[in-house]
Amino acid sequence: MTDRPREIETLIEMMARLPGLGPRSARRAVLHLVKKRAVLLVPLAQAMQQAAETARECQCCGNITTTEICEICTDPERTTGTICVVEDVADLWAIERGGVFKGRYHVLGGTLSALDAVGPDELRIPTLAARVRDEGISEVILALNATVDGQTTAHYIADALADTGVTLTSLAQGVPIGGELDYLDDGTISAALKARKGF
Amino acid sequence: MTDRPREIETLIEMMARLPGLGPRSARRAVLHLVKKRAVLLVPLAQAMQQAAETARECQCCGNITTTEICEICTDPERTTGTICVVEDVADLWAIERGGVFKGRYHVLGGTLSALDAVGPDELRIPTLAARVRDEGISEVILALNATVDGQTTAHYIADALADTGVTLTSLAQGVPIGGELDYLDDGTISAALKARKGF
Repeated sequence: MTDRPREIETLIEMMARLPGLGPRSARRAVLHLVKKRAVLLVPLAQAMQQAAETARECQCCGNITTTEICEICTDPERTTGTICVVEDVADLWAIERGGVFKGRYHVLGGTLSALDAVGPDELRIPTLAARVRDEGISEVILALNATVDGQTTAHYIADALADTGVTLTSLAQGVPIGGELDYLDDGTISAALKARKGF
Repeated sequence: MTDRPREIETLIEMMARLPGLGPRSARRAVLHLVKKRAVLLVPLAQAMQQAAETARECQCCGNITTTEICEICTDPERTTGTICVVEDVADLWAIERGGVFKGRYHVLGGTLSALDAVGPDELRIPTLAARVRDEGISEVILALNATVDGQTTAHYIADALADTGVTLTSLAQGVPIGGELDYLDDGTISAALKARKGF
C-alpha cells in the first residue's frame, strides 16, 4: 500500500525495532533524519558504523568498551578491593551517574531464570568468583534489581562466594529521595519502616 | 562523570536528538543496539548510509524519493488531474495508508508563518501554481492541518490559484471514526453538527 522507496522503508522497519520506538515514532524519526541529512543522518550513520566496529565487552567486567579492558577496570584512580555486581550495563551507567561508587564493577549480563534457561554459566558468575579470589576483593556489593529474579540471583551469588570469606552487602531499601509516601507501594513503605534509623 | 567510551557517548548524543527520544531512551536504544550488533547495529548503520546516499526530494511534488521524480508522480496507474496538497511528507504517508486517494500529491514543506519568516517562496507554492497550469489539473484538494497556520496557508493557496479556475476542495470536518463525543473538543462537535447529513 505504501509508495515509499525501499531504502526508506527498510530504515523505518529497523528503527521500529529499537526499544521505545514503534512504527509511528520510527516513521517520524526517519522523516526527521532524511530532512536533516547533512547534520543528522550522515553523522549518525557514521557514529553507528564506528560503534559497530569498536564496541565490545570488557574481558574483565563485561562493561561496554572499545578496548580489551574497559576504562573503569584500568582506571588507577579507582579503588581496588570492592566489586559492585550489576545485572546490566544500564545499571552500571545508572550507578556511575550517582558518582558515589569508586570501586570496580562486574556486569552479570542478566539474571538467573529457569524459564529462559539462564544458568550461572550464561551469567559471568564463574568469572566473578575467580575475580574475588585473584584480585584480593574484600567486599562484593550485590546491586541487583529488587525483583524476584534479581534477588534469586543475589542469593545464588552469595552461596557461590560463601567459601571465599568476602563481605557481601546489598543496596539499602527505603523511600526514594523526593518520594511521596502516598505514591509508594506498600512493600517499600514496610521495608523503610523496618529499616528505620535514628533521626 | 561518565566513563563511557567516546564512540558510545557520541552515538547516544545523536540518538537523543531524534524526535520522540530523550537522553534516557537514547541510552536504552544504544545499549540495545550494541548488544545486538550483528543483527541490528550493523544493518541499521548500513540502512542509514544507504538512505543518506539515495534519499532526495521529488523534483515534481516534494515527496521523499530515491529517483529524480517519485514513484507516485510516475505511477501510470494513478489518475492525473487531481492534486492533493499536504504540509509534510508525513501527511502524504498518512493519506496513502488510507488507500482511498489515487491522484498525485504536492508537498508544501510547511505552512506560512510570519513569526518564522516562512513565505510562499519557501513553501513550493509557486511550483504548485505552475503544475495546475501545465498538468491540466481540474481539482486541488487542500489537505492541510486544521490548525490556524494550516488554514491560513489554505486560504493563501486558494487566492493564488483563483485565476486558474481549478476546483478547490478541503477535507471534511467532523467526528473521527470510533470517536467518542465525550472526549472530543467543542470545536469539532460544533463543526460536525453544522455539517450534519441525512441518516
